[in-house]
Amino acid sequence: MDAGHKFQVRKLEILDKSKGFIELLQQLTICDSVSDKEFEERFQEINSFGDDHLICVIEDDHSGKIIATGSVFIEKKFLRNCGKVGHIEDVVVDSAARGMQLGKKIIEFLTDHAHSMGCYKVILDCSLENKAFYEKCGYRQKEVQMVKYFV
Amino acid sequence: MDAGHKFQVRKLEILDKSKGFIELLQQLTICDSVSDKEFEERFQEINSFGDDHLICVIEDDHSGKIIATGSVFIEKKFLRNCGKVGHIEDVVVDSAARGMQLGKKIIEFLTDHAHSMGCYKVILDCSLENKAFYEKCGYRQKEVQMVKYFV
Repeated sequence: MDAGHKFQVRKLEILDKSKGFIELLQQLTICDSVSDKEFEERFQEINSFGDDHLICVIEDDHSGKIIATGSVFIEKKFLRNCGKVGHIEDVVVDSAARGMQLGKKIIEFLTDHAHSMGCYKVILDCSLENKAFYEKCGYRQKEVQMVKYFV
Repeated sequence: MDAGHKFQVRKLEILDKSKGFIELLQQLTICDSVSDKEFEERFQEINSFGDDHLICVIEDDHSGKIIATGSVFIEKKFLRNCGKVGHIEDVVVDSAARGMQLGKKIIEFLTDHAHSMGCYKVILDCSLENKAFYEKCGYRQKEVQMVKYFV
């Protein structure tokens, strides 16, 4: 890929399904094909939260493919004087587009969004291998993530 | 406290502010006093998400005080075939009410709620000291939590 690309971060649009958005998520975890109807329904559900749930993407303007994405949603709490917390999820960069700081752009975009929404902090969970990347983005390790799977 | 208490888990109600709900949160983290108006606004905001953001409490029916709480919100994703994930937050048991399995009751209530909402997993972040407690609740460690504070 050409370093001359602009690689602007923008909000997910409904047409991004046809630009490889789901295939990109498949690089992150299990994600079978999603029908247009399922996609549109989930898109509208998330969209109904407005700025409280933002999914962003980077489109390669040469290939027209989505090559990076990430999401953040804003949790409303009572503690911290009715504070808000940003939760970053589902960050992935196309394996063919690594090394161009696209992940950093995504994280900065999502972090800035949480900040502008008035959050007092942003949190995310990552593997130990990805810890150094997030440290470069200004994050530090705090706790451990626990999980319970139903399936 | 008397072991004969029922200690039922129920949803947060607007009157719980006068039953020590905010004081309980203060045992967890920074939480200055919240005005009735601020409380009511935040309560309604969270309530507007319906079953997608649930805060539960245990009230001591003798003292009329809230002695345990926890919350779970449901994140809607595209991956995992438009799957959902439960996020558990802000679990705290009154320091005077420890050792009565109230924390376990809260976690089971929130976990069951996420399950009934169709989540494929539930996640939470905790300190290393609390890891063993969550393991007893059926959780296991997966990743590390990273944080960035704005204040």
